[in-house]
Amino acid sequence: MRIYDLILKKRNGGTLDRDEIDYFINGYVDGSIPDYQAAAMCMAIYFRGMDDYETAALTDCMARSGEMIDLSDFKDLTVDKHSTGGVGDKTTLIVTPIVAALGGKVAKMSGRGLGHTGGTADKLEAIPGMKINMERQDFLNQVKKIGIAVIGQSGNLTPADKKLYALRDVTATVDSIPLITSSVMSKKIAAGSHSIVLDVKAGSGAFMKTPADARVLAQNMVAIGKACGRKVSALITDMNRPLGYAIGNTLEVVEAVELLRGDIKGDLYDVCVAIATEMTMLFKGVSYTKAMEEVIRAIDSGAAFSKMKEWVSTQGGDVEWLENVKIGDGAAFEVPIICPADGYITAMNTEAIGSAAVILGAGRNKKDDVIDYSAGITVCAKTGDKVEKGCVLGYLYTNDYKAAEPAAERYLDALTIGFEPPEQTKLIYDIIR
Amino acid sequence: MRIYDLILKKRNGGTLDRDEIDYFINGYVDGSIPDYQAAAMCMAIYFRGMDDYETAALTDCMARSGEMIDLSDFKDLTVDKHSTGGVGDKTTLIVTPIVAALGGKVAKMSGRGLGHTGGTADKLEAIPGMKINMERQDFLNQVKKIGIAVIGQSGNLTPADKKLYALRDVTATVDSIPLITSSVMSKKIAAGSHSIVLDVKAGSGAFMKTPADARVLAQNMVAIGKACGRKVSALITDMNRPLGYAIGNTLEVVEAVELLRGDIKGDLYDVCVAIATEMTMLFKGVSYTKAMEEVIRAIDSGAAFSKMKEWVSTQGGDVEWLENVKIGDGAAFEVPIICPADGYITAMNTEAIGSAAVILGAGRNKKDDVIDYSAGITVCAKTGDKVEKGCVLGYLYTNDYKAAEPAAERYLDALTIGFEPPEQTKLIYDIIR
Repeated sequence: MRIYDLILKKRNGGTLDRDEIDYFINGYVDGSIPDYQAAAMCMAIYFRGMDDYETAALTDCMARSGEMIDLSDFKDLTVDKHSTGGVGDKTTLIVTPIVAALGGKVAKMSGRGLGHTGGTADKLEAIPGMKINMERQDFLNQVKKIGIAVIGQSGNLTPADKKLYALRDVTATVDSIPLITSSVMSKKIAAGSHSIVLDVKAGSGAFMKTPADARVLAQNMVAIGKACGRKVSALITDMNRPLGYAIGNTLEVVEAVELLRGDIKGDLYDVCVAIATEMTMLFKGVSYTKAMEEVIRAIDSGAAFSKMKEWVSTQGGDVEWLENVKIGDGAAFEVPIICPADGYITAMNTEAIGSAAVILGAGRNKKDDVIDYSAGITVCAKTGDKVEKGCVLGYLYTNDYKAAEPAAERYLDALTIGFEPPEQTKLIYDIIR
Repeated sequence: MRIYDLILKKRNGGTLDRDEIDYFINGYVDGSIPDYQAAAMCMAIYFRGMDDYETAALTDCMARSGEMIDLSDFKDLTVDKHSTGGVGDKTTLIVTPIVAALGGKVAKMSGRGLGHTGGTADKLEAIPGMKINMERQDFLNQVKKIGIAVIGQSGNLTPADKKLYALRDVTATVDSIPLITSSVMSKKIAAGSHSIVLDVKAGSGAFMKTPADARVLAQNMVAIGKACGRKVSALITDMNRPLGYAIGNTLEVVEAVELLRGDIKGDLYDVCVAIATEMTMLFKGVSYTKAMEEVIRAIDSGAAFSKMKEWVSTQGGDVEWLENVKIGDGAAFEVPIICPADGYITAMNTEAIGSAAVILGAGRNKKDDVIDYSAGITVCAKTGDKVEKGCVLGYLYTNDYKAAEPAAERYLDALTIGFEPPEQTKLIYDIIR
């Protein structure tokens, strides 16, 4: 077999078989296939696509390229979730203790934030003392003992994806459905959970700008996950505005705690209940109605918040801090964002709002940037809200006072204020099962 | 400017402007743009194509990436030719002394053979003593003195093409019209001649398998050459059978000499007269009829053969050898190819016939293979000819006796013998001016 022939075959619209995909991925990982041939292959895949069999083979092969976490001790109770990334998306902090309280086994690895989107690993580290690195056996023991462990990316999982993603990132081949699907799903397959719920974001703050594009990706990921033997469903949720009101690591922990205490409803609550319901349906094998009842009861009864505290405590986090933390803690400056005009907020450029939070110190532009956990934004008015000149649209939190003015400018630039209220849009566009 | 953005632009169907193409080519040559990004760009160009402005800019930029030969002393009398490569194509040996005899200035660089196609540089070296390397000034002095000098590729011409072609060769991005055009035409532009005649081969022994594909390439090359300020025309000629009867270096020199002596007519004669006529039209600015009359007179009068002898002698070649060389000279073995059946030859796989000659030692599979100049094939029956079981279809010449059997097998496999004579096909499909 020669990689040249495989590039030519894909370029000419052919279908690669399992052996050919193995040859490509194994050769790329072991260095016998150079970057330039892999780049040509990725661009050919971008143009020609891959059918479900090819994408499943690619996903499986990438999953097997490194460590595969064995969760078979937990039978089919293991359940994972993945979000394609958004602004204010703290759902993992909320849904994982809910499903663990309901008997699900959550053995989860989470990423860090980059660019305008946050990452769960950073949000967890905003909790003083919280450890997100542990030995593999300790990780599994914790899941066995309390039903939940969430750590950073660790071990040698999917080296093929790491190498291929870095190449795609510099060769304009990231936004290919089969390549995105195989990248996301290979990590989830290698991470070992039996059930996987995907939250595919659509809108101005998401990678997929329209629900239609998000649906194509969601359908592909669900099909491939099933082909790899997992139970999978995907929600398509709105990211034309931030989710919830808090953006930034400590701020989002506060909002998550408020939600689990039963203090807030609204968009974040609805999305978290929907995700947790899907997760519960999958790992328990119960109906939608039954799963949702259990999820709501887990919140209302305080069982989910108790599970969160048990989880945080077990990973070394300060539970007293968690019970007392308030909006603005740790930030030297709180600066209101003042509305410049009367009218209605008709649109929010959510990506720009995420980057305003990065300016304040809440995120990273480059991988080695240092985060200020207390920095961020609270959003007081979202798309559809009536606003008046001089009212407060939100608050900036930072320890870097000179960042406040450019962040406020970026925030205000991200808003469109019009005379008429905009059309209502859906929060949850669809669920693909 | 960032190469990532240029790859993305081309991938999305955009048009690269002159500055962007300069940035890509200059960055690739100086090493600041790595192979993997250039490979992604080439594959994006393969799928999206390039318009004439982009291709002209790419051609010009690649031409300027190295030495540009200055032939301005010869005014507009300089004339070059290029063949896209075929089997038995010894036209350069014939047409260049014809046009030099008519006052044209031929300052030509020729390539070596690789795979099933031969190269003029090898055919010249089959002449004992013939030197195809010389200093740039000696090369120009010879053109000035006798009107013709043909040497191997020398100097630092089009380093961008050398680097890019090597990359395309291993990333399945060779057969892209704008990339082929810019590769061929950048070399011709850098080589300095004012007029350029292209012989684009079409058929089983050519890169372009159909006259329609060859026409697209020919039209593109003519348009780009003109956009770069040169006079250009292109012939589209048949390569569904070998051109002439001789394949192999010494054998082809013999056939060229026979033609210039007026001893043979037929397909090779017709193609050579057509090419030389186009060259003469361009460099002299005369009509087609006038040019063809002059070309035929140059052959009939012996002026062209005299010019060939002057040229060979000036470059150190043995003219006595040239005047006396015969078919089979230097080859220890002459093996007839015996016809296995009665009927008509209805098709020849010309690429396979070329590779049969390579088996005998006439060409190279790899760049550093050593050639046996005397090896090759003479073809006694071509497509359309009636043949009988037991008749001689051709002769193999070699010094490697054990090569004869596989070469004969390859040759016979390349022939289709049927009961009915095939449809007559054209020798010269079209001329693009």
